[in-house]
Amino acid sequence: MVKRIAVLTSGGDAPGMNAVIRAVVRKGIHHGFEVFGVQRGYEGVIQGDFHLMTDHSVGGIIQHGGTVLKTARSEAFKTEEGFAAALQQLKAHYIDYLVVIGGDGSMAGAAKLTEAGIATIVVPGTIDNDMAGTEYTIGFDTALNTVLEAVNKIRDTAASHERVAIVEVMGRSAGHIALMAGLACGAEAILLPEEPLDIGTVCERLIKSHSRGKLYSIILVAEGVAKGFDIAGEISAKTKFETHVTVLGYIQRGGNPTATDNIIASRMGAAAVDNILQDNVNQLIAWQQGQIVALPYDAAVKTKHGIDLSIYELAGILAR
Amino acid sequence: MVKRIAVLTSGGDAPGMNAVIRAVVRKGIHHGFEVFGVQRGYEGVIQGDFHLMTDHSVGGIIQHGGTVLKTARSEAFKTEEGFAAALQQLKAHYIDYLVVIGGDGSMAGAAKLTEAGIATIVVPGTIDNDMAGTEYTIGFDTALNTVLEAVNKIRDTAASHERVAIVEVMGRSAGHIALMAGLACGAEAILLPEEPLDIGTVCERLIKSHSRGKLYSIILVAEGVAKGFDIAGEISAKTKFETHVTVLGYIQRGGNPTATDNIIASRMGAAAVDNILQDNVNQLIAWQQGQIVALPYDAAVKTKHGIDLSIYELAGILAR
Amino acid sequence: MVKRIAVLTSGGDAPGMNAVIRAVVRKGIHHGFEVFGVQRGYEGVIQGDFHLMTDHSVGGIIQHGGTVLKTARSEAFKTEEGFAAALQQLKAHYIDYLVVIGGDGSMAGAAKLTEAGIATIVVPGTIDNDMAGTEYTIGFDTALNTVLEAVNKIRDTAASHERVAIVEVMGRSAGHIALMAGLACGAEAILLPEEPLDIGTVCERLIKSHSRGKLYSIILVAEGVAKGFDIAGEISAKTKFETHVTVLGYIQRGGNPTATDNIIASRMGAAAVDNILQDNVNQLIAWQQGQIVALPYDAAVKTKHGIDLSIYELAGILAR
Amino acid sequence: MVKRIAVLTSGGDAPGMNAVIRAVVRKGIHHGFEVFGVQRGYEGVIQGDFHLMTDHSVGGIIQHGGTVLKTARSEAFKTEEGFAAALQQLKAHYIDYLVVIGGDGSMAGAAKLTEAGIATIVVPGTIDNDMAGTEYTIGFDTALNTVLEAVNKIRDTAASHERVAIVEVMGRSAGHIALMAGLACGAEAILLPEEPLDIGTVCERLIKSHSRGKLYSIILVAEGVAKGFDIAGEISAKTKFETHVTVLGYIQRGGNPTATDNIIASRMGAAAVDNILQDNVNQLIAWQQGQIVALPYDAAVKTKHGIDLSIYELAGILAR
Repeated sequence: MVKRIAVLTSGGDAPGMNAVIRAVVRKGIHHGFEVFGVQRGYEGVIQGDFHLMTDHSVGGIIQHGGTVLKTARSEAFKTEEGFAAALQQLKAHYIDYLVVIGGDGSMAGAAKLTEAGIATIVVPGTIDNDMAGTEYTIGFDTALNTVLEAVNKIRDTAASHERVAIVEVMGRSAGHIALMAGLACGAEAILLPEEPLDIGTVCERLIKSHSRGKLYSIILVAEGVAKGFDIAGEISAKTKFETHVTVLGYIQRGGNPTATDNIIASRMGAAAVDNILQDNVNQLIAWQQGQIVALPYDAAVKTKHGIDLSIYELAGILAR
Repeated sequence: MVKRIAVLTSGGDAPGMNAVIRAVVRKGIHHGFEVFGVQRGYEGVIQGDFHLMTDHSVGGIIQHGGTVLKTARSEAFKTEEGFAAALQQLKAHYIDYLVVIGGDGSMAGAAKLTEAGIATIVVPGTIDNDMAGTEYTIGFDTALNTVLEAVNKIRDTAASHERVAIVEVMGRSAGHIALMAGLACGAEAILLPEEPLDIGTVCERLIKSHSRGKLYSIILVAEGVAKGFDIAGEISAKTKFETHVTVLGYIQRGGNPTATDNIIASRMGAAAVDNILQDNVNQLIAWQQGQIVALPYDAAVKTKHGIDLSIYELAGILAR
Repeated sequence: MVKRIAVLTSGGDAPGMNAVIRAVVRKGIHHGFEVFGVQRGYEGVIQGDFHLMTDHSVGGIIQHGGTVLKTARSEAFKTEEGFAAALQQLKAHYIDYLVVIGGDGSMAGAAKLTEAGIATIVVPGTIDNDMAGTEYTIGFDTALNTVLEAVNKIRDTAASHERVAIVEVMGRSAGHIALMAGLACGAEAILLPEEPLDIGTVCERLIKSHSRGKLYSIILVAEGVAKGFDIAGEISAKTKFETHVTVLGYIQRGGNPTATDNIIASRMGAAAVDNILQDNVNQLIAWQQGQIVALPYDAAVKTKHGIDLSIYELAGILAR
Repeated sequence: MVKRIAVLTSGGDAPGMNAVIRAVVRKGIHHGFEVFGVQRGYEGVIQGDFHLMTDHSVGGIIQHGGTVLKTARSEAFKTEEGFAAALQQLKAHYIDYLVVIGGDGSMAGAAKLTEAGIATIVVPGTIDNDMAGTEYTIGFDTALNTVLEAVNKIRDTAASHERVAIVEVMGRSAGHIALMAGLACGAEAILLPEEPLDIGTVCERLIKSHSRGKLYSIILVAEGVAKGFDIAGEISAKTKFETHVTVLGYIQRGGNPTATDNIIASRMGAAAVDNILQDNVNQLIAWQQGQIVALPYDAAVKTKHGIDLSIYELAGILAR
């Protein structure tokens, strides 16, 4: 009998998710599976919202952000009844393997299904790049480039008005987006949740740069640190420089995926099917040292993907 | 003796200002003037911050947002002493004509100088498109496209999560950006300061669309109406739909100018010099019915450039 | 009985066509019409490829380039049999009004149908902006911005290598794209089919600029003038400067529509329906002096939408 | 006495080169070096075109493509006299270390200087990603994204007209750009110099896809394989499908650098200085397995950075 794979996206959407879906569907069909798409993440599992996918149903989607399968954060799935219903639906639809595309919370859900006897694979998808076990999560590169383009626009006004521009970026409790975007755009300061916040030092640096002729500055603030508006207030008070604040918000979650995101997404989606073929399930498809590997969930959650402090230090040196 | 033109940018920066500066400088030199750039708007006039410009000094600037002359909102210029100092500097530097690039406030400053005997010309530059006397202000088109691109990204997430996305855009007390960007992106609702806000009607429309299968919506809110977050709160309360809010902020002010902005900016800068050649001064260079015209300040301020209500109505019909 | 509108896109695709389709469909339905979409232009008419459209069927299309109705250049429609078949299908489907979105060729087809008794309306859509009777054709603004962005990239390499970059742009036998994009990007020279080509003068200008310190140049060549590669050869031979050539090609036809294109497209689509409501048919919806007007085909074809030579002259002055 | 670093860019420009220059200058100064910029690559060395750089002289450059140091392919440097003059100038300016940013040819030049007693470091910069010894060269990611955006535009027209779009991309004799961009954009076929060209198979696939309802296709052709126009001719002849060709050309070399390029560029520039600090010279700064390493030139040139055939195979499966 033909084996069945179901695929869903869960948690926050991220550019590149469609490329994963396309890869799971087409490579799955290539190897003789039936592949079902589940709508709205675990919510759709509970409701039995499974649809047979064809090569055609994933045509013309790779260039778009978001997820054609839609996504949700399911509260029902966290309840006993909801979880039982999900299990029941997976069995009723004869699903042999479930591929979950999402972040830490989605992996926790997959791990719980695994304990209940469902073979699962997780593909890491979140713009925040904050998942345990993998150096890269799909969507991160697109988000970085969105921040970079936004900062390029903000720089025009900051330079024209000789102001300190404060840019608040996403990242939940992690500073990956702020750090890497800050390095990429040459920010004068980067405020991260991982490093003690010292506004005094930031202000000293701004004053010193200013005295050397740098008449405007860009400061990236990770949302996990503080509100951009609060930071701006403190900087204005201490330096007397004019500040202005931009909270980038949801534009960071969408947009056409970058080449890097679609490449890694396509390869990871394919790797999910390859691992299924080898019955190597209950694995996180992870990026480590430039390679795609598979990692059991329990091993993955034990690691932490922290920021690279040497890059933080470098950004400081280069902003001199 | 060679006649002298000074040029400055004032008020908020806007993409296309560099193209105006380039046009004033090069066309001015072409017709035998000496052209001086003034740094930081009226502030630079007061401080005598005049620099002789050459063809070369405006090379490689047309493609960049912001203003190479920098800009400021000068408080000093509004004082008697400041104004007197400005007058004195203009005379000391033998400036025959002053070209001011900016919005309503900048035009008021130019008109005051005119009364004091300085020949001035105003070129309309502000992203808000809210100046009296002209149907178009430089920077508006770039801002619209920035909003459009941002909404395209936000739509990905709104569609994936089936949410109502509220997008707060600039425009000060006018709704031009919200209205025209809303039409361009196909927003489900547009909230303008010019039209009475009726959240109830908006919510009814959202519920009706939802019942017909439209599972997400984009709502554009002009900053002159209300805070996006407040609107979102009311909509959530009334419809139970999930909402998310993005305040686009300063990204709307910067960015490489669009073709339309650089074309109109180049033509208006040239028109400023043409009017100077004919000694037709104390004029706003204005856009009317697809043509560039010159309009005395007092005639300009008597008109109002309101929004086109028929376009608002059309946007409503097309969002059905 | 409910009146029926059919809408099709014909000739080369242009960004903004989807916004026209959406406007015709939704405003048509709003006023009580049934609206049918025809696939592949006149080809689809011949084949009876009519589909009833709903509000929903034009959802989520406004942000995309191309045309969801697809387009073609129909050879069959130019034959007697083909034309007769088209007429017969329009009658068999009880089509009362046909809205044609396209360029000069498409308008000629509509005029011919009109002579045969079919009520038609044409909405001008082509990136070339070369239609008689209208100052603007939908898609032109997006194409200009695509050229501008491409030139911004090409400038990086031209400046780094101190070369003369030749950029060949579309426009068929007209120079609108080359002229307006050339003004917008600050090109050092613009070669148009409407103006006698004098490579010698161009070379003199390049040598003069070079001697004043301008170490690289951008030259825009309309495809109607000559091959970019031939121009480059002549310039290299005469000036000894290094040249490099880019033929922008089909990227100019696609891409997400700009705000201006979607705004004018939405308004023109609506105007088509408004004219139908007033039974004012056999009209080109045209852009004249910043307004949307309707113009009988025979009046339209008598006019010529040539380039504005004063803008060409201005571009020359500003490139000094 | 203060040690001196000189830095130059050589060969074709690539986005991210400015970030390398900025990193070498600022980190060099941070560690107490004097850093000189050399204009126009080896040509500038021969002419003694060295300029002392400051923190300030690399401000505001990271966001721009191209290279502020300009670049050239020096014929003089390949002659005995030129090479001797270069050596002499390096000594006359007391240059202790030379950092060369460029591709294979630039590395060969650096290696030759090393043999003559000059301490050099090479940072890999070329959009082609075809250098021995490193998995990544700066500029590649920006080029990929430029191709991706171009294909997104071209797809609009291909889909609207139901054509086969042939897109010729750069890469010299290597297929890296074609392969990775092809995977990222979901191309129906990718033609690489590394793999035997079989137009027959491509045509069969197109016909098969077409029969399953895929009415348009995108084919990426690496410039090292054949002319896009020749490929199009063969495909038209064999399949009778309409084709259209775009040769992307120089837009692939420019543009604002992506986040990835600026991040790797900043880190590699810093690594160059770190290796100089340890007197670990005559090294290529290379990217291997997600890490930055240093590799002696002779070791580097012995390796080959070929394409990953498993990715080529995957792209084929996913295009089904």
